[in-house]
Amino acid sequence: MNSTDSPVTVIGLGLMGQALAGAFLKAGHPTTVWNRTAAKAGQLVSQGARLAPTLCTALAPGSLTIVCVTDYSAVRELLGADDVDLDGTTLVNLTSGSSAQARETAEWAERRGARYLDGAVMAIPSTIGTEEAVILHSGPQADFEAHRSTLGALGTVTHLGADHGLASLYDVAGLTMMWSVLNAWLQGTALLRTAGVDAATYAPFAQQLATGVAAWLPGYAQQIDNNSFPAEVAALETEARTMEHLIEESEALGVNAELPRLIKAMADRAIAAGHGAEQYPVLIGEFSRPQTN
Amino acid sequence: MNSTDSPVTVIGLGLMGQALAGAFLKAGHPTTVWNRTAAKAGQLVSQGARLAPTLCTALAPGSLTIVCVTDYSAVRELLGADDVDLDGTTLVNLTSGSSAQARETAEWAERRGARYLDGAVMAIPSTIGTEEAVILHSGPQADFEAHRSTLGALGTVTHLGADHGLASLYDVAGLTMMWSVLNAWLQGTALLRTAGVDAATYAPFAQQLATGVAAWLPGYAQQIDNNSFPAEVAALETEARTMEHLIEESEALGVNAELPRLIKAMADRAIAAGHGAEQYPVLIGEFSRPQTN
Ligand SMILES: NC(=O)c1ccc[n+]([C@@H]2O[C@H](COP(=O)([O-])OP(=O)(O)OC[C@H]3O[C@@H](n4cnc5c(N)ncnc54)[C@H](OP(=O)(O)O)[C@@H]3O)[C@@H](O)[C@H]2O)c1
Ligand SMILES: NC(=O)c1ccc[n+]([C@@H]2O[C@H](COP(=O)([O-])OP(=O)(O)OC[C@H]3O[C@@H](n4cnc5c(N)ncnc54)[C@H](OP(=O)(O)O)[C@@H]3O)[C@@H](O)[C@H]2O)c1
Repeated sequence: MNSTDSPVTVIGLGLMGQALAGAFLKAGHPTTVWNRTAAKAGQLVSQGARLAPTLCTALAPGSLTIVCVTDYSAVRELLGADDVDLDGTTLVNLTSGSSAQARETAEWAERRGARYLDGAVMAIPSTIGTEEAVILHSGPQADFEAHRSTLGALGTVTHLGADHGLASLYDVAGLTMMWSVLNAWLQGTALLRTAGVDAATYAPFAQQLATGVAAWLPGYAQQIDNNSFPAEVAALETEARTMEHLIEESEALGVNAELPRLIKAMADRAIAAGHGAEQYPVLIGEFSRPQTN
Repeated sequence: MNSTDSPVTVIGLGLMGQALAGAFLKAGHPTTVWNRTAAKAGQLVSQGARLAPTLCTALAPGSLTIVCVTDYSAVRELLGADDVDLDGTTLVNLTSGSSAQARETAEWAERRGARYLDGAVMAIPSTIGTEEAVILHSGPQADFEAHRSTLGALGTVTHLGADHGLASLYDVAGLTMMWSVLNAWLQGTALLRTAGVDAATYAPFAQQLATGVAAWLPGYAQQIDNNSFPAEVAALETEARTMEHLIEESEALGVNAELPRLIKAMADRAIAAGHGAEQYPVLIGEFSRPQTN
């Protein structure tokens, strides 16, 4: 079947669901939509979508159904209704949630005869349908491959592995990176503004640094996977002294010092645990366990 | 004068000072060295360096002198000795310290007749003399330009501005970015390892994310400089809900949650201050003031 001929159903027409359905329509897929509040389907219907009168008629055996509602309890409430038959459908759940919710919902859906992929949308509605929109999927690879070209209408789609929890884990991991780069940039910007340097002057320097350090990650990952952290670049103990400088500088300039203090606290704990002569990635031990003090 | 003919003096032959002097020698500069513990000059002398018998003979009027010792009090102790004449010399102080120390030392050295540049070495000794070594300078631009080609023997050298404190501020700002990218990567790695994903599998994803987010910084900087934060991409309030997911996921999986909690705490404070409908860079307000609660 030519990929643009494949029919698809979108359940949930909030900001994200409307963007998803719109991208399928634009790519030429026969698109069925359903939303609790039917009025939200108006624009999509005028673009050629078919509005299913009930949820049970929206789901056809053998069809691909995308679900994107507020949270997992809404997913279970909707799809758990007595008149809803999941047997033979393929569900791709793009609702945000935890890895545990994804795994539980996979089991629940599979018990009811559905094929189930869990997904995470690392994008905002306005970029859906462009390459820029990254959409992560996890669950049985064969189910992903069967629908890869249809899902491709949404953006850059990837399959992470069979464990249904992976999409949500990569999603929160990626968001942590996003906020951390932004926070580090804000900390630096705050420091430099005390000397009259504007944000635009500092930003390219911060960008270059972040990009440069990011390039070390694949190499540093080897240390973690080998559980061996020789101080090839610098020992943690040496870095901790510089972290102290950062705290002092922030405090002296009247800038927030919480991020600097957290950076040092994590390093200090690893040093206290006897890792002062090892290299930074040894901190994986601290990041892998709850705060102990 | 051909740049490799320019003589240079290096004061302080610790790990970094030896690397600096070695790079000047390699580039062909007549190099004079001095260290409190003279024995550390041995290898450099065998490579052609001249060992000055006393500090005062190491400094010649009109010459360029690099200082790289433990800290600023060592710099002042050394260069403040009665028999040391700074008149007519140009000092480039590559010792690590705070922006206030840099500014004070500049004033102090200038009062004694020296031209003074403050610097920060964003590199480890083994990379000195290669492009990879980034060395930041601040102070009078003309003094930097006069010695740019000589300093270029050390690596990628840049001049940040006339304020002597800038090199040290960019240095700590850059280190904050470095540790933050590493910590975000470690947090993500810790989360994914609970699902059996190894560090090497996750690292390229983290690298791509960090590089992608870093590319937003110049644009986001405009919002700060214009002090206007329209939610073009996402409102802080929406992001805060996802931050809550991150905390819950980390806690549920038994992973450290301090970095997630700090991320949310900063956002929550901006929301409490009435900025929930604005965009992330509005957090500059929180980063620019000490913790208030
Ligand atoms: N918007 C983004 O930028 C973005 C980015 C990445 C991920 N996401 C995720 O995508 C999902 C949807 O987000 P959104 O922005 O589209 O949210 P939204 O605009 O608030 O829409 C929520 C949708 O969920 C439906 N819904 C909620 N509770 C329901 C229930 N009990 N029964 C039936 N339907 C229910 C709503 O139906 P009604 O119309 O009838 O209320 C609506 O269609 C969320 O998990 C969000 O985290 C969003
Ligand atoms: N190593 C790095 O990776 C690195 C990277 C970036 C920046 N830096 C900065 O570079 C500077 C030097 O670091 P380093 O690694 O070379 O340190 P180091 O190996 O510990 O050497 C310290 C140097 O300072 C001298 N010194 C200390 N106190 C003195 C005093 N009161 N009077 C005279 N000399 C004194 C020592 O002389 P003696 O030999 O007589 O003890 C030695 O030459 C520091 O500010 C450091 O933060 C280092």
